[in-house]
Amino acid sequence: MTIQQYMMELGQQARMAARHVAVADVALRNAALRGIAQLIDNSRSDLLAANAEDLARGEANALEAPLMDRLALNDQRIDALIASLHQVAALSDPVGAIDNVRTMDSGIKVGQMRVPLGVIGIIYESRPNVTVEAASLCLKSGNAAILRGGSEAVSSNTLLGGLIAQGLASVGLPKTAVQVVSSTDRAAVSALITMPEYVDVVIPRGGKGLIERIANDARVPVIKHLDGICHVYIDSDADPEMALAIAVNAKTQRYGTCNTMETLLVAEGAGAHLATILAAIADEGVEIRGCPRTRELVPAVQHSATELDWQTEYLAPILSVRVVDDLDAAIDHIARYSSGHTESIVTDNHRRAMRFLREVDSSSVMVNTSTRFADGFEYGLGAEIGISTDKLHARGPVGLEGLTSVKYVVFGDGQVRG
Amino acid sequence: MTIQQYMMELGQQARMAARHVAVADVALRNAALRGIAQLIDNSRSDLLAANAEDLARGEANALEAPLMDRLALNDQRIDALIASLHQVAALSDPVGAIDNVRTMDSGIKVGQMRVPLGVIGIIYESRPNVTVEAASLCLKSGNAAILRGGSEAVSSNTLLGGLIAQGLASVGLPKTAVQVVSSTDRAAVSALITMPEYVDVVIPRGGKGLIERIANDARVPVIKHLDGICHVYIDSDADPEMALAIAVNAKTQRYGTCNTMETLLVAEGAGAHLATILAAIADEGVEIRGCPRTRELVPAVQHSATELDWQTEYLAPILSVRVVDDLDAAIDHIARYSSGHTESIVTDNHRRAMRFLREVDSSSVMVNTSTRFADGFEYGLGAEIGISTDKLHARGPVGLEGLTSVKYVVFGDGQVRG
Repeated sequence: MTIQQYMMELGQQARMAARHVAVADVALRNAALRGIAQLIDNSRSDLLAANAEDLARGEANALEAPLMDRLALNDQRIDALIASLHQVAALSDPVGAIDNVRTMDSGIKVGQMRVPLGVIGIIYESRPNVTVEAASLCLKSGNAAILRGGSEAVSSNTLLGGLIAQGLASVGLPKTAVQVVSSTDRAAVSALITMPEYVDVVIPRGGKGLIERIANDARVPVIKHLDGICHVYIDSDADPEMALAIAVNAKTQRYGTCNTMETLLVAEGAGAHLATILAAIADEGVEIRGCPRTRELVPAVQHSATELDWQTEYLAPILSVRVVDDLDAAIDHIARYSSGHTESIVTDNHRRAMRFLREVDSSSVMVNTSTRFADGFEYGLGAEIGISTDKLHARGPVGLEGLTSVKYVVFGDGQVRG
Repeated sequence: MTIQQYMMELGQQARMAARHVAVADVALRNAALRGIAQLIDNSRSDLLAANAEDLARGEANALEAPLMDRLALNDQRIDALIASLHQVAALSDPVGAIDNVRTMDSGIKVGQMRVPLGVIGIIYESRPNVTVEAASLCLKSGNAAILRGGSEAVSSNTLLGGLIAQGLASVGLPKTAVQVVSSTDRAAVSALITMPEYVDVVIPRGGKGLIERIANDARVPVIKHLDGICHVYIDSDADPEMALAIAVNAKTQRYGTCNTMETLLVAEGAGAHLATILAAIADEGVEIRGCPRTRELVPAVQHSATELDWQTEYLAPILSVRVVDDLDAAIDHIARYSSGHTESIVTDNHRRAMRFLREVDSSSVMVNTSTRFADGFEYGLGAEIGISTDKLHARGPVGLEGLTSVKYVVFGDGQVRG
């Protein structure tokens, strides 16, 4: 059997399973999630043994330390996995509700019912806990899933896939509702993203390179999250203490996350506060790269920001800083360099706050708070499969609702069209 | 300049114009729409002359009669165009509203603001009125548009494009907010659907072949509408008179529309009414093709339905009919053969009605009414750019809201993440 045939078989099975999961009572879907949690708890030693195989192979392949860390499971991480399954089970059912019902002049009543998408393909790297998180969100939202993890985690993922299948079967759901791709061949990914007859949407999670490659080659819709070049703009009417607290938090609370500030924009009129703000950020060990006006205002800034800095997601303790004339110049800079992820304005001026909200075209736009809040849990979604920088379908943090669609439902009493 | 360069130039201009249109007050956008209506009214003779060129070329190229009819403008159709511009201007503004605002435990307030998509590419055939309809819906929803009509209508479309640009400029909006592609080269379409940096979504309107080709080659999201193989299922508990009225209306009110019934499914238990229903439909001049059980129950049915009939969108006075055991068999038939457009059940049984609504996976699912109601105007959307059989982003009739997205807006008071 070729990889293409194997993937097509997974696709056909997923399509069939999706019909069952879509109409399964939420009690059954929750029972499956809790059953999987129990099975994982009962299989800790097997799971750690499988993970040890992955780690040994990673060591033999000289995998870098951060990747090894993400690959590793331990009892604490297994606890977190189990807890996340119970959390998802406790969320309210995202499907089946009928909203927006209105009665038309013809007499028909038209509403929209929230429904699962069908079959979701998820492509991810190294962290084996994604296997369980993705499976649980797809299942809770009434979808079938095909999961393709990284080759480095294949032993852990295969074992987890087996436990998930067992959990599904134990409540009478088709075990093919969640399938872990066993092939580590890249051709499996190529097949997964080019089967619109079996796969309704693909969600890649990983580095920019992976996501761009998938978006480029896919023949099915992709919910994607590219980079986060996030900005904070300190307006001339900003409260200085608030500006300080937000800028420090947005840059230094964590460096490797996509909602971390990478460029600080400061209005000329707020220039008097800049030295204090940059000193506080530098104190945390952050390298500051300033535009000429920044370096003039704050001579302690030794590095010059270049054109390339405005385009860079550092994911590291580096910050580029630009002094701009006013709100218009800030919005222009953001329009040119932002990746459309998250931007925040600090201001006490209502009209400028509302203009920023309206005119900045990013998935999250904020007033007087830290970009670090751009997160599914902080937004009350209860879960997050990723943060979409696309505009269609789902934008910003994607929770259970992003894994669903709607259909029109029409209630008549014999009406016909005249 | 190559076609690619020309299209890239249109794309860049559209991207720049989109920023202006997105933040333009609705009063300005409405003034542009009313201005375009006035300009069209003032240019009737020019428009009819340009259209005459298209018609002459069509005749020289032996264009088929239905296409010639769709291509033709006359005073009545120009009146309808003008009226549609005023109608769109009268609709409420689809962008800018903030919904779902909730306060989180952290103190931030999180909501969603409805925003334009950006740049919309529309690809369509023959009917020059689509140029004005598409431009008006994109403009009203705050988007820029690139319109690529069929080569057969190039003279009419170019003239209309000029009037639209004039109307935009007259209120101070960039005239590049709506651009009509002047090249009739197919390479223009290939370029339009492969510029994700300039085009946010493409909407093809036309035959199945055109849409499949575009969906296959596109590198930008596509809102597409494939075929409509719509079903009516008459349950054993259907009211006979209601079943008769709905079946006749769904098949015979119009034959060429995508929401017309193509296959009638009848429960064994409703078989007693089948002869009356089929006689009424045949009386309208419809050819009936029946499964063996249908022909046994109604010997007057002379044609046999084959496997191919269940897969066919006739768009013609032909109906395939199948007698099925029960609701489960009807749902199975629909899952297998429906194009996911619109299906309706006729029944007085509440539980079966609700099961049909829940389990049938189509963009519109109906109870006790005619599939012919699946339409943006009948659903109260005020306008319709098409009917999406996709699941992501927009599903079913697509009005102004389908041409928008949301972004998260976050209101803080200095909160930082802990």
